[in-house]
Amino acid sequence: MSELRKDPVTGRWVIIATERSRRPTDFAVKERPKANALCPFCPGNEEMTPPEILALRGSDGVPDGPGWRVRVVPNRYPAMRVEGPMGRRGLGMFDRMNGIGAHEVIIETPDHARQLADLGADEVELVLRTFAARLSDLRRDPRFRYVLLFKNHGSEAGASLEHSHSQLIATPILPRQVVEELEGAERHYQLKERCVYCDLIEQERTDEVRLVCESGAFVVVQPFAARCPFETWILPKRHASDLDAASATELADLARVLGETLGRLGSALGDPAYNFIVHSGPLQEPELVHYHWHLEIMPKLTQVAGFEWGSGFFINPTAPEEAAAYLRAISLGEERC
Amino acid sequence: MSELRKDPVTGRWVIIATERSRRPTDFAVKERPKANALCPFCPGNEEMTPPEILALRGSDGVPDGPGWRVRVVPNRYPAMRVEGPMGRRGLGMFDRMNGIGAHEVIIETPDHARQLADLGADEVELVLRTFAARLSDLRRDPRFRYVLLFKNHGSEAGASLEHSHSQLIATPILPRQVVEELEGAERHYQLKERCVYCDLIEQERTDEVRLVCESGAFVVVQPFAARCPFETWILPKRHASDLDAASATELADLARVLGETLGRLGSALGDPAYNFIVHSGPLQEPELVHYHWHLEIMPKLTQVAGFEWGSGFFINPTAPEEAAAYLRAISLGEERC
Repeated sequence: MSELRKDPVTGRWVIIATERSRRPTDFAVKERPKANALCPFCPGNEEMTPPEILALRGSDGVPDGPGWRVRVVPNRYPAMRVEGPMGRRGLGMFDRMNGIGAHEVIIETPDHARQLADLGADEVELVLRTFAARLSDLRRDPRFRYVLLFKNHGSEAGASLEHSHSQLIATPILPRQVVEELEGAERHYQLKERCVYCDLIEQERTDEVRLVCESGAFVVVQPFAARCPFETWILPKRHASDLDAASATELADLARVLGETLGRLGSALGDPAYNFIVHSGPLQEPELVHYHWHLEIMPKLTQVAGFEWGSGFFINPTAPEEAAAYLRAISLGEERC
Repeated sequence: MSELRKDPVTGRWVIIATERSRRPTDFAVKERPKANALCPFCPGNEEMTPPEILALRGSDGVPDGPGWRVRVVPNRYPAMRVEGPMGRRGLGMFDRMNGIGAHEVIIETPDHARQLADLGADEVELVLRTFAARLSDLRRDPRFRYVLLFKNHGSEAGASLEHSHSQLIATPILPRQVVEELEGAERHYQLKERCVYCDLIEQERTDEVRLVCESGAFVVVQPFAARCPFETWILPKRHASDLDAASATELADLARVLGETLGRLGSALGDPAYNFIVHSGPLQEPELVHYHWHLEIMPKLTQVAGFEWGSGFFINPTAPEEAAAYLRAISLGEERC
């Protein structure tokens, strides 16, 4: 079983994922399966994954058979496992606990040849509805404090399989990055009695310089303190702390906005590797007045190097105002937001 | 001039480095200069860098001429600049300040063909003495609160020039990564009246399972909560918060230990790209009882992906105990520590 370990100085938790154990010789780059025959995420190969958790398929389909449009399966090499006790324990001065959690893969399309940016808005909408459904379901397990939904696209962004997919990890600990956002948002609320993200949306819509586009329900911005070139945030205009509180109309709107944003980034940067992450509220808390769910996209154009590792602050060679102007100027033919 | 910007939610600072400005088309990988003729760090090409800040050369040499063994120059594309006012100011809800700081390059050897791991202990010692000298010098500028010394080796680790070099960035802000270490170390001291790093060294020397090697003055360990495979820390046995408080004997010992550690990592992993960083105390404070300077080496074997970005916690597929056993078993012919 994998193990969570806490750094005794900073309190930083790390997952020592022995299920993914790698020897020094394992770090050579491996060939990724290109053909349908070898891809565990292609229809017809359902037996290559653990049994499915959820799938969107027609009424005539059977579980773990073909005919699905989106399919959710446990990660075959999970960073954390669902079964077992938490097992908090010490080791001299050190703290550790069992790697209890969930690690799932959301296969976004049956089609091996199409990436998320290539899907139609109706297909992306199914993916987003699946995100919301998994979040709502995992919320019921009292051991979990957070679900991080994320996507790694391209090998530079950490993707090990080409077939388009996103992932989620449910953790028994509130991740520090989320804690920082929650604490900062709470400080702002205590001072102003307003949500910091609502304020941010208001200012970006007024200033317009970092705004990429806007739909009925969402804004797309380059954040003021962008960590990397073309870092992009998508925020719902309506205040809500949780993704699964989004209405069907909002998810349909987000599907169009996300598709268009990936299209603009792809057109500006030539299909870059990227990560996206969804930041939603903590699982065991009610709707929060001070927190606001959102999506962050980080194209992988620069390396995180020694300075960033050692200081925790980032050097970004591209001003977000420049990046926003560049993205706004791109015409996708058929504008969706 | 570059600008420091603060994220309004998390308080995270970012350097928007317009001096290094890059358009979308600039992100293609560039050829790195291979030959001496084009390398700005090779002897004879001193005019290709800004005028030197410090150089170790024989008494017959002239500044910005050849004959040096280690040479320090300002970074030609600095993330921050020394001249000018701090210029703290707002922009609606946002906070920013001028990118005032120092960004220097330490050219570790005149020889283009040799990397830090190839240098003799006497040569590495000159590099370390240069680190200490620059730290002591920058400490006198009251605008700076921190100097981060770091090295990017290999393009995957963010190095843009092949000729062996390290860098330093002096910042007007205490970096959050350092703040986290300082705060954690202070909490431990308040509880136990002992330095957390001294405790850690004691436990690792007793347990032996994460110990890689030990010299008269230093220990080399795989940290308990290693963020990545083969993350390696080098800590002085004698408590001191600042690198420039190290004695000449200690620096000579560290040169041997660092050389041997890079040798072991190179042998285990086949000359991996890596970052190292030196964490020393804040500039404007006296020697601290609760903080302990040290060096952290992070080989670049895995990608930082969506989960790490979004959660701030790391998945490490190699247990540090396994990595330590592997590194201990390597024989370098001539053991230095």
